[in-house]
Amino acid sequence: MKKVAVIALGGNALLRGDQAGTIDEQEQNTTDTLENLVHLIREGYELVITHGNGPQVGNILMRNDAGESVYGIPQMPLDICVADSQGGIGYMIERMFRNVLKKHHIDKEIVTLVTQVLVEKEDPAFSAPTKRVGKIYSREEADRLLSDKGWEFKEDKKKHDGWRRVVPSPKPIGIMNEKVVETLARQGTIVIAAGGGGVPVYIDEEGRVRPAEAVIDKDNASSLLASRIGADEFYILTDVSFVYLNYGTPDQEEKEFLDYRDTKAYLEAGMFGEGDMAPKIWACLDFIEKGGRKSVITEAFKLEDKSYGTKITMEYED
Amino acid sequence: MKKVAVIALGGNALLRGDQAGTIDEQEQNTTDTLENLVHLIREGYELVITHGNGPQVGNILMRNDAGESVYGIPQMPLDICVADSQGGIGYMIERMFRNVLKKHHIDKEIVTLVTQVLVEKEDPAFSAPTKRVGKIYSREEADRLLSDKGWEFKEDKKKHDGWRRVVPSPKPIGIMNEKVVETLARQGTIVIAAGGGGVPVYIDEEGRVRPAEAVIDKDNASSLLASRIGADEFYILTDVSFVYLNYGTPDQEEKEFLDYRDTKAYLEAGMFGEGDMAPKIWACLDFIEKGGRKSVITEAFKLEDKSYGTKITMEYED
Repeated sequence: MKKVAVIALGGNALLRGDQAGTIDEQEQNTTDTLENLVHLIREGYELVITHGNGPQVGNILMRNDAGESVYGIPQMPLDICVADSQGGIGYMIERMFRNVLKKHHIDKEIVTLVTQVLVEKEDPAFSAPTKRVGKIYSREEADRLLSDKGWEFKEDKKKHDGWRRVVPSPKPIGIMNEKVVETLARQGTIVIAAGGGGVPVYIDEEGRVRPAEAVIDKDNASSLLASRIGADEFYILTDVSFVYLNYGTPDQEEKEFLDYRDTKAYLEAGMFGEGDMAPKIWACLDFIEKGGRKSVITEAFKLEDKSYGTKITMEYED
Repeated sequence: MKKVAVIALGGNALLRGDQAGTIDEQEQNTTDTLENLVHLIREGYELVITHGNGPQVGNILMRNDAGESVYGIPQMPLDICVADSQGGIGYMIERMFRNVLKKHHIDKEIVTLVTQVLVEKEDPAFSAPTKRVGKIYSREEADRLLSDKGWEFKEDKKKHDGWRRVVPSPKPIGIMNEKVVETLARQGTIVIAAGGGGVPVYIDEEGRVRPAEAVIDKDNASSLLASRIGADEFYILTDVSFVYLNYGTPDQEEKEFLDYRDTKAYLEAGMFGEGDMAPKIWACLDFIEKGGRKSVITEAFKLEDKSYGTKITMEYED
């Protein structure tokens, strides 16, 4: 049986922070990234692709705001905006990947699933929203939206001077359609799923699926998907080729191989630093803990050369 | 083997023209419509659901326009907007259908596929755009957009005083992922696909899949999907329970049963009138011509009572 790899494409794989966000930029970045996944296909992997949606859903939220103020069009809630972004981004990845595969004379089917991801209604994240989304508001606008819609805000001094809406980032506990993803992938179809961490939903008291006004961390949702479908390997593609201990200090140390126990100890000691990298490594560990064989953190452009990339396994590989 | 039915949900199944377009309205309409599909499931049909996206993609286009003018966010091309609408609407239908099935104690998997639909690059529709999309522009704005982006416009005097962008409505010739839709449906999964007629794409000289700035008729795309997956029956759910000959004239005649030959003759004689109904009936005939057993045009709310609905078959049923 062929190996299944879940590949989480980071935001910059599709759109970099220094770009305006035109469709031409997004298509070119996406093509460049996907070119590198061809190596994995040639090595015999079946692929499930997940992706971020930060810049895109940010733009969709801003457009909703502008559409209401200019034309009076009702704004859509966050769940619909995330689902919209899955449609647009998923379609773009699927179309560009068809062209990349054609160029390499690889004949594989590709499908894009709009994916709901289950969270717990009682997740403590709901009482402590942390994830910034959407536009920068003035204090007055933020106060009005808090009173009108119950939106919560945090001051954003780092990048901008103003207030941004914050939404909860609950833990994913289940992936709708996981069986379909698994079946399709094992049959050799490339599956694009769980974009933007999935559309967050929860089950209410009557057993109904309800939307959660939240954003699920893309790497957590991808790791859970990888576990649930019994994937062999889990890749997080980001903007560094290796994970470092004590990054940016004189003691900085590149890590090519990591085992479960050491990684967990480093994480708990804060040695991967705060910010973006620690959550990615937790997502990788979670996959290993649930039986996954290997997690890899690297850049898309380094996938061909196996001497790059940090490989995390239960026991040291080397 | 169970029968497969493709069900095309008309625009008003999700959002009526007299509604503002809030998410609450859309969710309620969708639930009401889906309640009626339960009858078909109980009768033993496997379902593939397609849907329109007129009001929703119209709003997405307006939001793109407003987002650019208010915040300078680059507008997305029409193909991305259609894909966005497939994500949002497909997710909504899937989530509401899960709740409807739960209420009726029916255990079935549901998936939403983002669907590309192939058109011919040489389709004559590309030189004669007819489909109105997006906002109402002034003559000056329309002239500027024609010069900046090559958009074409038609004066819209019927509903509004101004100019609207017109895009081609080419004929669908292939459905990406048709095998996946067929396999999933035959395995008992409800598949939501080809929303808004699908994202229109064509194959260029180098064999690459390219986006077409166009809109494919939803009923045509649905009919083609139904043929390609070998569906047994094709339903167009709209706002009338029957098709009429000479509708709105003293000779008006309700038709419960129609055969292929008579229907074609009526169509060619213009007896179904111009406007919306004739294209729907052509889509139904096309399905029959390609081997489909039965096409039905009716209202969702009349699906339970088989004495409603116009049934079109190769030979008269009764």
